Amino acid sequence: LIDETEPQPKRRGPKPESSLLRRQGKRQDIIEVTAKLMQAHGYNGVTLKSLASEMNVTEPALYHYFDSKQDLLFVIVQQTIDNVLEKVTGLVQQAIPSALKLQQVLLLFSNQIIEQMPMFATYFQDRGELSQERSAEIRTKERHLIHLIADVIAQGMETGEFRKEADPLVTAFALIGASAWVYRWYDPAGRISPEDLSRQIAAVGLNGCLTDKGRELLESQN
Amino acid sequence: LIDETEPQPKRRGPKPESSLLRRQGKRQDIIEVTAKLMQAHGYNGVTLKSLASEMNVTEPALYHYFDSKQDLLFVIVQQTIDNVLEKVTGLVQQAIPSALKLQQVLLLFSNQIIEQMPMFATYFQDRGELSQERSAEIRTKERHLIHLIADVIAQGMETGEFRKEADPLVTAFALIGASAWVYRWYDPAGRISPEDLSRQIAAVGLNGCLTDKGRELLESQN
Repeated sequence: LIDETEPQPKRRGPKPESSLLRRQGKRQDIIEVTAKLMQAHGYNGVTLKSLASEMNVTEPALYHYFDSKQDLLFVIVQQTIDNVLEKVTGLVQQAIPSALKLQQVLLLFSNQIIEQMPMFATYFQDRGELSQERSAEIRTKERHLIHLIADVIAQGMETGEFRKEADPLVTAFALIGASAWVYRWYDPAGRISPEDLSRQIAAVGLNGCLTDKGRELLESQN
Repeated sequence: LIDETEPQPKRRGPKPESSLLRRQGKRQDIIEVTAKLMQAHGYNGVTLKSLASEMNVTEPALYHYFDSKQDLLFVIVQQTIDNVLEKVTGLVQQAIPSALKLQQVLLLFSNQIIEQMPMFATYFQDRGELSQERSAEIRTKERHLIHLIADVIAQGMETGEFRKEADPLVTAFALIGASAWVYRWYDPAGRISPEDLSRQIAAVGLNGCLTDKGRELLESQN
């Protein structure tokens, strides 16, 4: 039924899909090397020239992927917040007790920061270098994220799983701060392993909220 | 016995003491205005020219007090850490239970950050702009501070006042992070008063550590 002798179209070079994948891989490499350089030297201490030299490519090769250093910073910041926002949104939508939700959110957040330290360090250090318009876009996402977490805390206060000594929003910022601070002091080559670190920071944050009831509920779930 | 007719030495201008005080007051004004400008625009967004214009003085008048913008940043960072270090040292030397010490340290730290937001914001944002030598001097003080707090936590773990789920140093950094993060999000003109904020953040941090025994001990002391 099919004429197997029909000639196949000539292949010129690799298939388009793999070329696209390679291009995307290269683009992601540039993003991650930029984040490492900005973590070490700050936004103002990095130039496209120093980036090209670090990646062993020409400056025009970089312009193939990004128009400016500002664009690169924006992509770093955007990827970082979008990634956390997507994962946290997934976690808080589960039909599980608030204590368990918060535990998962704190573990996720600590893990993400520790695993992607250069991206988060650049985010926290250099986010202020974004243009006003881009900064406003990121601020909207940050607000969304903090309110997702504050809502879990407020729900847990209603069910009696969490203490009511602090405002849910203040608590959410305190817990985020406890995890985020890691980018300023943690040395992954030091005596505390990344796994222990994220588990311990999540534990301190969770203990900061749990009532006896919340703790019992959590222990019965884990 | 004293010849009251002896002529007094002529006063030329104000007494030296009051001139010194005025000079010190002026110097402190410059430090605080610089911190406000750096909080808003970052180290790289502030010039001695913009500072002089903000203070309504000439640039040479500023050079009377400081040799450079770098010197000004160093004084801001130094004053901020020295002040916290001195107060925390006083608190941890008291002969009181660890739970009470940690409560006082957390309240102090939160209060200081909220009261001196421009100084701390400049510290946290722009501390990386210091020269290597100066940065090393500050790092030594930061290490001293974090170990003072970690020691209180370790002692409270030994007496059974604090949970042992996290390393004392990790816990100390988590608690510092929870308070310090305030500089990034808190608006003193918003719905949460500075007093409530520092009390609530200290409560979340303390709850992150306390065992039932520690909580009972603390309640009996307060």
